[in-house]
Amino acid sequence: MRQAGRYLPEYRAMRARYGFLELCKHPEAAAEVTLQPVERLGVDAAILFADILLIVEPLGVGLEFGAGEGPVIERPVRGEADVAWLGPVDVESAVGFVFDTVRRVRKALPVHLPVIGFAGAPFTVASYVVEGGASRDYLHVKRLMYEAPAAWQRLMDVLVDATARYLNGQIAAGAQAVQLFDSWVGVLSPVDYRAFVLPHMKALFAKLTPGPPAIHFGTGTAALLPLMREAGGDVIGLDWRVDLGAGWDAVGHDVAVQGNLDPAVLLAAPPYIRKRTQAVLDAAAGRTGHIFNLGHGIHKETPVEHVKALVDIVHELSDRR
Amino acid sequence: MRQAGRYLPEYRAMRARYGFLELCKHPEAAAEVTLQPVERLGVDAAILFADILLIVEPLGVGLEFGAGEGPVIERPVRGEADVAWLGPVDVESAVGFVFDTVRRVRKALPVHLPVIGFAGAPFTVASYVVEGGASRDYLHVKRLMYEAPAAWQRLMDVLVDATARYLNGQIAAGAQAVQLFDSWVGVLSPVDYRAFVLPHMKALFAKLTPGPPAIHFGTGTAALLPLMREAGGDVIGLDWRVDLGAGWDAVGHDVAVQGNLDPAVLLAAPPYIRKRTQAVLDAAAGRTGHIFNLGHGIHKETPVEHVKALVDIVHELSDRR
Repeated sequence: MRQAGRYLPEYRAMRARYGFLELCKHPEAAAEVTLQPVERLGVDAAILFADILLIVEPLGVGLEFGAGEGPVIERPVRGEADVAWLGPVDVESAVGFVFDTVRRVRKALPVHLPVIGFAGAPFTVASYVVEGGASRDYLHVKRLMYEAPAAWQRLMDVLVDATARYLNGQIAAGAQAVQLFDSWVGVLSPVDYRAFVLPHMKALFAKLTPGPPAIHFGTGTAALLPLMREAGGDVIGLDWRVDLGAGWDAVGHDVAVQGNLDPAVLLAAPPYIRKRTQAVLDAAAGRTGHIFNLGHGIHKETPVEHVKALVDIVHELSDRR
Repeated sequence: MRQAGRYLPEYRAMRARYGFLELCKHPEAAAEVTLQPVERLGVDAAILFADILLIVEPLGVGLEFGAGEGPVIERPVRGEADVAWLGPVDVESAVGFVFDTVRRVRKALPVHLPVIGFAGAPFTVASYVVEGGASRDYLHVKRLMYEAPAAWQRLMDVLVDATARYLNGQIAAGAQAVQLFDSWVGVLSPVDYRAFVLPHMKALFAKLTPGPPAIHFGTGTAALLPLMREAGGDVIGLDWRVDLGAGWDAVGHDVAVQGNLDPAVLLAAPPYIRKRTQAVLDAAAGRTGHIFNLGHGIHKETPVEHVKALVDIVHELSDRR
């Protein structure tokens, strides 16, 4: 998950100086924001500071981030007419600033700490492009899939191509692992996932530069896990809505898993955080290939000392094994 | 799911005359709204028109329904001090109007059509009472569970008691089945469900008048299904995020299941609705104990003729077997 965020005072200080998109587009500042939580928390990897919708801006759909409002797409894609003019994205000129951020982070980071890049998965990115922003029911997306499958296919093709070049650019710039966030794919039934998402995810994983591990993450995916595994990824990210052991069984023990403490647990005091962290580690005990993580992003209400306590607890309990 | 709703012109006409709570509290009008979709759609049962938060009003937390805003709780329950004064609810005087509605519906309905009553499950009702309304992340609820388990226990005890008497009153008034909506329980990890919800659901099912089948429903529950089954219910409701066959395997074939077409499919044209309905029925084929239903409520954008088409399709395809 992104490590920088509003729970972190030094991030809030940076956001007082830069707008969200402005911060993403300023490699020196974005690198600083990437490195802040690494120093503060003592985590084992740095997660690139960026946004899953940066790749959408060159599509010309009118991306804006209002103050505290989340992303807004001014010209949402709703049918054949809207996808007809979507061309391939010139990734290098559109999001070259992200590659610059990765290079700066890699250079500044101690050699034993990897830098992890990321992108939004095509379904999740498309959900914003089609809905016009965040959504509750994803009705425009589903209607497009059901009623205009050729338009959906075209949108997916454009996003698969752009996303692969975006992640490969991050890898070339020094990212040692990449994560694909299909954050909202859990709104789909397994039959929808198989028809409208799986082929595109397969195509995307096939285009990635071989070598760096790819992490494949979504939320609300308990019933989708075997299909996500079929789609691709060296590591499958699990959210907290599934037991870690059951989730690992579902994806198969020949892939690694990442997860899966409910970030809401970080609102409780450290002794309770310890108890729940122990339970996650216990569920992974006796196997290799578990990367401890939260099941989704850190809530802005979280005390930063609780996050630091979590990192220390994980280190302590993992060293004991 | 509730059959009345904004997708239905005759319901919108009634709502032009009555506020939402006012409509619930007016048994003659509520009975009329209950019966409208039965006549219009030709469904096989009538679902009581009511709201899961009616039982909350006598708690004195200040329930209001703003125009199009959803429910608002003016004095949310956040800790020990807030639950101390929560007493048992005098159900008969507080929601006797619902029992009157059930009696009127039962009297007006042809004898072969059952009337189904319902209530919100304690977790889902508590989520409104604690958050103060609808929520995205349920952080106040989770913090209460983790940090003040005695207060959570007290709140659950009050709601279990009130909900059991509320459903038993509906049964006494003529409801031939009852449904417990734990609509938002899917935000919990299995470990949270086991600790903070399961014992209370067990207690609630044990208090229900024996005889009428109880339906136990939630959304986003793919990983919770075995625990929900353990908690109770003669029928387990499945949302669309799980394959019907896999969901039935998870709860066991000695209980019935209800579900599970994605209501978003009803935005598509009838031939597509037919295809997806066939797939749900196919997944249940060869077994008895499947009640066809949507996986959640009908979206207000849904053309009413698509809903009618669905009912006809289900009748036609089921008769063929």
